[in-house]
Amino acid sequence: MATALETGPSLTLSKPLPLDSGQVLERVQIAYQTYGTLAPAKNNAILLCHALTGDQHVANPHPITGKPGWWDRMVGPGKPIDTDRYFVICSNVIGSCMGSTGPASIAPDGKPYGMRFPVITIRDMVRAELALLDEFGIEKLHAVVGGSMGGMQALSLAANFPERAERVLAIATTARHSAQNIAFHEVGRQAIMADPNWQEGAYYDTGRDPDSGLAVARMAAHITYLSEAGLTHKFGRRLQDRPNGEKGAISFGFDADFQVESYLRYQGLSFTSRFDANSYLYITRAMDYFDLAEEHGGRLANAFAGSSARFCLISFDTDWLYTTSDARSVVHALNAVAAPVSFVELSAPYGHDSFLLDVPALDRVVGGFLG
Amino acid sequence: MATALETGPSLTLSKPLPLDSGQVLERVQIAYQTYGTLAPAKNNAILLCHALTGDQHVANPHPITGKPGWWDRMVGPGKPIDTDRYFVICSNVIGSCMGSTGPASIAPDGKPYGMRFPVITIRDMVRAELALLDEFGIEKLHAVVGGSMGGMQALSLAANFPERAERVLAIATTARHSAQNIAFHEVGRQAIMADPNWQEGAYYDTGRDPDSGLAVARMAAHITYLSEAGLTHKFGRRLQDRPNGEKGAISFGFDADFQVESYLRYQGLSFTSRFDANSYLYITRAMDYFDLAEEHGGRLANAFAGSSARFCLISFDTDWLYTTSDARSVVHALNAVAAPVSFVELSAPYGHDSFLLDVPALDRVVGGFLG
Repeated sequence: MATALETGPSLTLSKPLPLDSGQVLERVQIAYQTYGTLAPAKNNAILLCHALTGDQHVANPHPITGKPGWWDRMVGPGKPIDTDRYFVICSNVIGSCMGSTGPASIAPDGKPYGMRFPVITIRDMVRAELALLDEFGIEKLHAVVGGSMGGMQALSLAANFPERAERVLAIATTARHSAQNIAFHEVGRQAIMADPNWQEGAYYDTGRDPDSGLAVARMAAHITYLSEAGLTHKFGRRLQDRPNGEKGAISFGFDADFQVESYLRYQGLSFTSRFDANSYLYITRAMDYFDLAEEHGGRLANAFAGSSARFCLISFDTDWLYTTSDARSVVHALNAVAAPVSFVELSAPYGHDSFLLDVPALDRVVGGFLG
Repeated sequence: MATALETGPSLTLSKPLPLDSGQVLERVQIAYQTYGTLAPAKNNAILLCHALTGDQHVANPHPITGKPGWWDRMVGPGKPIDTDRYFVICSNVIGSCMGSTGPASIAPDGKPYGMRFPVITIRDMVRAELALLDEFGIEKLHAVVGGSMGGMQALSLAANFPERAERVLAIATTARHSAQNIAFHEVGRQAIMADPNWQEGAYYDTGRDPDSGLAVARMAAHITYLSEAGLTHKFGRRLQDRPNGEKGAISFGFDADFQVESYLRYQGLSFTSRFDANSYLYITRAMDYFDLAEEHGGRLANAFAGSSARFCLISFDTDWLYTTSDARSVVHALNAVAAPVSFVELSAPYGHDSFLLDVPALDRVVGGFLG
């Protein structure tokens, strides 16, 4: 991605941020967006947590792509997450590249961190989010809400800081990354590291980003975000029309003959304009390390023993990245400690990405749970 | 991969090979292996067709890796494909790199083809195989047998050259590549083409192969060969012990902490020692182009209308690359033309790779069908 740009409000945390690795991050910058008004009692805040390649631009146009925010359909006045009633806050996770401190940030020695940035965890991201809430004086959230990696943050917050949220809404997520999840991320990381422009992560001053590797990483990951049936429905084996307007035909060459090839190439390339390759390494690593049971003595139920929050888990029947079975494991753990939990498996054709897309049943469940 | 080495017997086809693209390949070299003895009536031949990264070394040690042949457990005296009774022949597909003509071969102008090699199809591979059988004087096969891409060749032979085989055994395969299949292959191709060593395919004389790209391609593909449950069973989230003997622990770094990462990296790297990156491009392209229905007026049943062969389709319940549903489509098409077909879905935990692994039920079905 290119140089820093206007990413909206941000603040510097007043205290150093301790990390799971034992390291401490000083002068942590957190970029965030808010929607709605914080009540005088500060009891109407909803923390939204974004996914791997998401950011704080939930319901405003994205400053790089100009597209609507990633949950514009869900967050706003009168919408399921109703900003007439709630104060919604979303911050860019640490390790990312949209204004919060990450590997592209300037380290205390005046040079970009690169791979000197400490490896972070999902819990570290949550610590940064809670530190931001501290700066706002928000002690207890009305709810913490997230999908995918955002759901991991919601579960981690519930498990590690149970006094901070009354409601926990975790969508299309898991309490632990599986071997297959790790494997796909490792392919992406190897693609980035194989790009000669990567330069062990010290590419910020070279004028050449490892965009080819990052694009391949994105392409591989993108397949996991869609269902097989969704891909078939959207593209099947349909051929790509040629730039000159010629009707699609097999070229007996290596151009993008199939629409799905062209789509994937576009997904890969466009991603590189808004994302930093090192951030991709760090955030995928945090997700791979995520195992809420392992953090709590090897038993997932232990993670929620101290919680008094109400939980809602939502999965999608076509999501093969974080499956209904993954969600059900969390529900069983919550049942084991008698935590109030509702669980819905929604039917939607889009695979993992369903949580971002037009699924009216999702709107109803989200709105209903938040009250 | 390194330079050419001893790959066993080969011959030069006596006639030029016409291709689906309209091009013609001259002086085509076919490398092959045979097992057992051809009967004087030449009526006991079984053609084995290999998969994407397989080769002709079915039941002898591989000349590069030294490992047993890929179907050593299935092919031999007294084994399910019994070389005491049958003459088994397997040739390296054109486009590949184990002795048959492919992009690494020397073109008529004295230089390696590279990307000047014509784009081939599964049917072209079959044409080359039949031309090899012609050289042996084998008019009709006792059976054509293959798994994965080998199964595509078996189905293509049955559809396009129905007089050439009495039995068709297609395992863990499909009659058409789906959007998701194409997508995974496209990721691999983009990884190879993004490698600066690729040099538009003209790397043979540079001393630097696009091994990094090829390794990433292999890693991505390898995930699709294994089931999610198989990966979990084999690796789970188990940590890698350190080279110094230290017990596995999270490193808060980017080394291979998890065994699955280490395994994938090894799969990627070791593959580059035995496979040519351009061959990977050409063969994946041939597979992506494969759509037996489209070749036959858009109706799969048409493909088999002229066949008098007996068919056997085998799928594996955990194969998410070429699923039971893919196999069933072929069976339905065969039913529609009243072709004799048996179909078995086998239960095995290994995903797509099951056809190469120890699945005793597979041995029984294969042996039973071949008679």
